[in-house]
Amino acid sequence: MSTDRYQKGMDKLKELTVADANSPTGHMEVGESFKDIAPDLTKLVVEFAFGDIYARPGLDNKQKVLTTISALVAQGTPQIGMHVITGLNVGLTADEIAGCIMHLIPYVGFPRALNALKVAQEVFAEQGVSVTPQD
Amino acid sequence: MSTDRYQKGMDKLKELTVADANSPTGHMEVGESFKDIAPDLTKLVVEFAFGDIYARPGLDNKQKVLTTISALVAQGTPQIGMHVITGLNVGLTADEIAGCIMHLIPYVGFPRALNALKVAQEVFAEQGVSVTPQD
Amino acid sequence: MSTDRYQKGMDKLKELTVADANSPTGHMEVGESFKDIAPDLTKLVVEFAFGDIYARPGLDNKQKVLTTISALVAQGTPQIGMHVITGLNVGLTADEIAGCIMHLIPYVGFPRALNALKVAQEVFAEQGVSVTPQD
Amino acid sequence: MSTDRYQKGMDKLKELTVADANSPTGHMEVGESFKDIAPDLTKLVVEFAFGDIYARPGLDNKQKVLTTISALVAQGTPQIGMHVITGLNVGLTADEIAGCIMHLIPYVGFPRALNALKVAQEVFAEQGVSVTPQD
Amino acid sequence: MSTDRYQKGMDKLKELTVADANSPTGHMEVGESFKDIAPDLTKLVVEFAFGDIYARPGLDNKQKVLTTISALVAQGTPQIGMHVITGLNVGLTADEIAGCIMHLIPYVGFPRALNALKVAQEVFAEQGVSVTPQD
Amino acid sequence: MSTDRYQKGMDKLKELTVADANSPTGHMEVGESFKDIAPDLTKLVVEFAFGDIYARPGLDNKQKVLTTISALVAQGTPQIGMHVITGLNVGLTADEIAGCIMHLIPYVGFPRALNALKVAQEVFAEQGVSVTPQD
Repeated sequence: MSTDRYQKGMDKLKELTVADANSPTGHMEVGESFKDIAPDLTKLVVEFAFGDIYARPGLDNKQKVLTTISALVAQGTPQIGMHVITGLNVGLTADEIAGCIMHLIPYVGFPRALNALKVAQEVFAEQGVSVTPQD
Repeated sequence: MSTDRYQKGMDKLKELTVADANSPTGHMEVGESFKDIAPDLTKLVVEFAFGDIYARPGLDNKQKVLTTISALVAQGTPQIGMHVITGLNVGLTADEIAGCIMHLIPYVGFPRALNALKVAQEVFAEQGVSVTPQD
Repeated sequence: MSTDRYQKGMDKLKELTVADANSPTGHMEVGESFKDIAPDLTKLVVEFAFGDIYARPGLDNKQKVLTTISALVAQGTPQIGMHVITGLNVGLTADEIAGCIMHLIPYVGFPRALNALKVAQEVFAEQGVSVTPQD
Repeated sequence: MSTDRYQKGMDKLKELTVADANSPTGHMEVGESFKDIAPDLTKLVVEFAFGDIYARPGLDNKQKVLTTISALVAQGTPQIGMHVITGLNVGLTADEIAGCIMHLIPYVGFPRALNALKVAQEVFAEQGVSVTPQD
Repeated sequence: MSTDRYQKGMDKLKELTVADANSPTGHMEVGESFKDIAPDLTKLVVEFAFGDIYARPGLDNKQKVLTTISALVAQGTPQIGMHVITGLNVGLTADEIAGCIMHLIPYVGFPRALNALKVAQEVFAEQGVSVTPQD
Repeated sequence: MSTDRYQKGMDKLKELTVADANSPTGHMEVGESFKDIAPDLTKLVVEFAFGDIYARPGLDNKQKVLTTISALVAQGTPQIGMHVITGLNVGLTADEIAGCIMHLIPYVGFPRALNALKVAQEVFAEQGVSVTPQD
């Protein structure tokens, strides 16, 4: 049932994620850890968030990840880290990701921006990327 | 005092806004209407939000506006309309702006996305732009 | 394409909404007014929010509407009114709906509860229902 | 029943509100308009918010109103105007109230601060108070 | 002073909570750990949240807990776990609680729903309850 | 460049913070830990948040810290602890700080207030201050 949307979602996920021999969805947690209490969650995430929404035309992948990160910074939800990895994987630079968080200071305030910078900083260190020094 | 940052902010504002013979800051409301109760507000907005933040390297103008709109959609604050105009002015298409709001549905939920689409729809109509029909 | 989920969503919508000869989705706005800027929105709302989520087992319709209203009260989003109509339609009483909003005062504070009561009060008046007087 | 707390709340309300021959709670809306759907709301507001909380020791009235306004600015809830009147009534100056909202810019961002300034500006005009001009 | 409301609140708490020989309020934290800095907090929680609000007519206990959990999911506040235990104790099933969180995805987005599922999953494991497998 | 605002910000910080031989900004984290990914952050915090905003006339330091803490309680952001220390340093008592958080219960709900009380309680213990017992 709904094989097409699921396959479309999985194809999109492959574009977005770091290949990982141990997981068909790469670095992205798409609800597999909730199989016991929400057995349909992964299907909903893959089909809706990736097959329907992420696969929409209109924005390219880099724009989609920037948009996602910006909303999570404003909400203060902790999923930012996972999407920072996705951003690096689709070609956003560390400068663009840090620049996005810094850009949001006037709109969301320093506290939410600082919380997000801390998460980004940890991901950058893990992934071995760095921001270009300014003179 | 601090002429450089103010000028830098005004220059950035000129890049971002629709020229308007009646206002040095174009379509953008930067706090002039609060002169009576917050006489330093315009200076703070121009110098900080535009001179310091919008003029930072890292993201281009189109990315900065997408980032701004995304955060406002997540917050549910009504300034979205003004930034949609800015987006059109720096070259974002109606498809990209509507695409950004649609992309946020899985992250912020339908209610906040629908509220933002309504604002964008009104701005698109006023500005005479439209989204490419899908077949 | 995806006829089954769309049909399932429309069937669920019929259960939930007040029949209206002029609209296949009754009193419920499911994105039709955004056809020009988000032509796929109605399909996404019907298929995902109604076909996938509202049609899930686990909760009955009355519980689902209470749950929805509670989240919207906490968010402060203005869609509450539409869901109050849905609640009355699936058999929630005005006492239950007002009771739900009053119950949330200790969790969300008086301001958000009062904003929601105002919306509920208007819908109750329009729909001709009333809360049982207390002695 | 619970006469003491109700009386204590009403006494506190009298301290806080502008006397108004037509209303025992002055300019303050304490839920009387919801008698039909939430007949116990006014009692809960008067007893809890005013009798229990506003009458606590620890802060003086001016501090309590500043604290209230600051939280409402951060939430973006529209009750700010009513509390700005209360603030003026207990002796906060327009400078202090505008200063409070301006002070919050780095913590909540410009959009929420501007929304609040607009409400304060309207109340100041209605109440005939003004902010001291800066040179 | 105010013995009736306190007693009413304690009676309600007994209905809602898992009996625990070591605590008169069972599994529910009602502010006792803040006696040193807010000596009146427990009294306010018991009297207001339980004696006034939880003891209101209008909704049954299962509806009240669903309503509470839904608001906390939308807010993203970490008290969800405590209320999930309360839900199980008043007769909500794990299916209903997980179903409530899943139902909120279209309204609050995946991130807040996933955060809540994680808390519910931990509580279900501790309490030895499970969601009915779907075929 | 902009030496005056930076110096003004540093002077304000000295007023607000506990002297610390190891750090020019005392107990206050003003973004130094993000030098690698946001090299201009400390400058922006010192110049804007302290030089421009904290140094504004209108409110005294005690009012400014109360205002800040109130907004952070409403947002639920974890920076509260740092500002509680600042509050004690500028002369707010533990009674005033705990009183501020308790005062916000009717506006933001118990969950956000309890989260903030926990942070304040930890800071009070570290700083060796206590709330006056009530009889």
